[in-house]
Amino acid sequence: MTESRLDETHDPAARSFVPSANDPSTDFPLQNLPLGVFRVEDETPRIGVAIGTHVLDLSAAISVGRLSVAPDLANACSGGSLNALMRLGAEPRRALRRQLFALLRSDSPLAADSAMQARLLLPIARVEMLLPAEIGDYSDFYASIDHATHVGSMFRPDNPILPNYKWVPIGYHGRASSIVPSGTAIRRPSGQRKAPDAEAPTFGPSRQLDYELEVGAWIATGNPLGDPIPIDQAEDHLFGLSLLDDWSARDLQAWEYQPLGPFLGKSFATTVSPWIVTLEALEPFRVPAATRPEGDPAPLPHLDSDQNRQEGAFSIALEVHLQTQAMREQNLAPLRVSRTDFRSLYWTFPQMIAHHASNGCNLRPGDLLGSGTVSGPAPENRGCLLERTWRGKEPLEMPSGEKRAFLEASDEVSFTGRCERDGFVSIGFGECSGRVNS
Amino acid sequence: MTESRLDETHDPAARSFVPSANDPSTDFPLQNLPLGVFRVEDETPRIGVAIGTHVLDLSAAISVGRLSVAPDLANACSGGSLNALMRLGAEPRRALRRQLFALLRSDSPLAADSAMQARLLLPIARVEMLLPAEIGDYSDFYASIDHATHVGSMFRPDNPILPNYKWVPIGYHGRASSIVPSGTAIRRPSGQRKAPDAEAPTFGPSRQLDYELEVGAWIATGNPLGDPIPIDQAEDHLFGLSLLDDWSARDLQAWEYQPLGPFLGKSFATTVSPWIVTLEALEPFRVPAATRPEGDPAPLPHLDSDQNRQEGAFSIALEVHLQTQAMREQNLAPLRVSRTDFRSLYWTFPQMIAHHASNGCNLRPGDLLGSGTVSGPAPENRGCLLERTWRGKEPLEMPSGEKRAFLEASDEVSFTGRCERDGFVSIGFGECSGRVNS
Repeated sequence: MTESRLDETHDPAARSFVPSANDPSTDFPLQNLPLGVFRVEDETPRIGVAIGTHVLDLSAAISVGRLSVAPDLANACSGGSLNALMRLGAEPRRALRRQLFALLRSDSPLAADSAMQARLLLPIARVEMLLPAEIGDYSDFYASIDHATHVGSMFRPDNPILPNYKWVPIGYHGRASSIVPSGTAIRRPSGQRKAPDAEAPTFGPSRQLDYELEVGAWIATGNPLGDPIPIDQAEDHLFGLSLLDDWSARDLQAWEYQPLGPFLGKSFATTVSPWIVTLEALEPFRVPAATRPEGDPAPLPHLDSDQNRQEGAFSIALEVHLQTQAMREQNLAPLRVSRTDFRSLYWTFPQMIAHHASNGCNLRPGDLLGSGTVSGPAPENRGCLLERTWRGKEPLEMPSGEKRAFLEASDEVSFTGRCERDGFVSIGFGECSGRVNS
Repeated sequence: MTESRLDETHDPAARSFVPSANDPSTDFPLQNLPLGVFRVEDETPRIGVAIGTHVLDLSAAISVGRLSVAPDLANACSGGSLNALMRLGAEPRRALRRQLFALLRSDSPLAADSAMQARLLLPIARVEMLLPAEIGDYSDFYASIDHATHVGSMFRPDNPILPNYKWVPIGYHGRASSIVPSGTAIRRPSGQRKAPDAEAPTFGPSRQLDYELEVGAWIATGNPLGDPIPIDQAEDHLFGLSLLDDWSARDLQAWEYQPLGPFLGKSFATTVSPWIVTLEALEPFRVPAATRPEGDPAPLPHLDSDQNRQEGAFSIALEVHLQTQAMREQNLAPLRVSRTDFRSLYWTFPQMIAHHASNGCNLRPGDLLGSGTVSGPAPENRGCLLERTWRGKEPLEMPSGEKRAFLEASDEVSFTGRCERDGFVSIGFGECSGRVNS
């Protein structure tokens, strides 16, 4: 890690005057300061900053003079999406973080001004969280080699990893219109599916509805059409990360995906956690890119750099929790069905960004990149039910006595993400959840 | 055809006071009235209507009182993109067409008001044409069975058409950010490509740059997330058509496309013709959906309707023209390298729309659907060089004495589209062209 990128905003001794921000279990301590877009009843959407159980109204804090920011930054913080702030790039975002840190720490003048606190800080429970940005394009990758190996071995037992996998950060274009914020109900899609022994497909509700545990990367400035992004500049275009659930209808996907890839098996819904954890908040949790096994090729030069090898990845502990209707009725807590770490991916986000733009494709502020399902080698590390139950052959045993091969009506799926490191305050990503409505 | 949808705006005897609109070779007679977005120097982009060699400034015509339209329609015509007009749906669009027809025909009061003509009508040659809409999502289909058969037989000689093809209108998500209007220079993309006998891929400029002759469909109102669009309502969501060139780097595509489909082989550029020919202008050119060969399955019920069978397709004569730098220097006209008809597709746009939304995926105003390469059975009907030169094995002989297997530096590709039917005035689509810059 380039320790020089750490500054006072990573100080583990710093505390906030917002009591809930100092709870060791909070996702949103003073050292996190994730950005999102919220709405109070039918008011205009506004940009907010999560602090403990509260959200700071960013434009209100600027307009009352509690944050001293340059006019272009103030202007970028005044809209109903983060796109304008994303476009400004890293320096203004860092300046904003330092200002927010000072405003919310325990020695801030705001700590003693309860009237102003009431005006600027709203309980998160009382606001509606929206999508943080207008998403121009959404691209989804396939960067976990454990996921690719597991899925590949179901369909091609002798040849699970295709020849291009270790050279190309495989990805595909996804659907932007159906991306929804955490908490949105998920309608089970209908579509064509064909049993292997059936003569013809039928049309009806998917019988193999699945989640996919992913991390999403939000693009900051982006590049003009025709100008690739070199790997050593890729992080300049990374605004921050969210959790992402790439809901999948496996039966639709299996029937449709050749030769042009997934389409309706994916495009019915994608859930994102509404808070974007910025690159600055993630600095202490950088780790080296996963070591390639002996014998694997080195990445081609346009996907390789010292910096990426040394600190291109992030350590994020990820978990999947599942709760059925019967479990809710019996007051049984959600069952943790998977746990894994984001650091295990074969390709890093800087590599995915450099690859994506290597043909001149323009990335724009607010574009979203999905990592692909994050899985590890062991059964409990697998980030989707297709893998976790091995195509339904090994269903999960739920504490209610039920079994789950794929998702059933009223099942609720929740992801969590936490970053921990000795000597630093832990941060988290907040909620990424959705309930299947039928 | 439902002749009742024909009205006075299809009257072949009607003429415009704009002389160039009465030239039989024009793409833009009074009976067409396509919509687009133009800019004059550095002014704000505005919506225009093509008439002969001129563009009518739509918002100016409304503001001076020459078009009598409802306030919501006037408002939708006042912006810098067609999205708001698309959102309004078919009835306001039809009302606008009738008003425009009356304004521009020979007996209009405007015919005698040359001062006002000078204010409202600008030579197309003096304006810059922009993208007609903000494109939220772009989806590309594969609806020509001749194209699928040709390409499939190159890669799977014994099994060119996959089992799903005759059941599913195969499509994939495309890249919206890199869609550009006709005339934009096309930069040759770099990327990874691997020769079959090479041990490892290399990174560099594509050696197999190609065009794809397609028709693009623009979505009008669209559907809320979760609500499918029934086939018998699909056309309510079709605003109109443009020509589309889905530039492709075949070497990048061949190496990357398994298992998730095309990505960087496509996302570097897609060209659209800037004028949208509306559904109303296309009414006289409806034809039955192509007859399925004996033995092919009938479409599943959600993709089938009497109306679609009887008139779900459009007859559009499509051509590809190619001109090299040497040809320009020798004053040799572009060579027509392909001609085909859009009516030959295996799937119609209403079927593609109904399929796309069948899982609840939301289509939004301004979304763009590509038909996929339009090819016919004969060599001269093939809509891309991959097919036309059979992977480069049968290069085209150019009038300059050059050969072309794939596109070379400074080659210019132009598509044309014309609709012709006895008893009606022919209409066209205008330019869809791009020059490869290196």
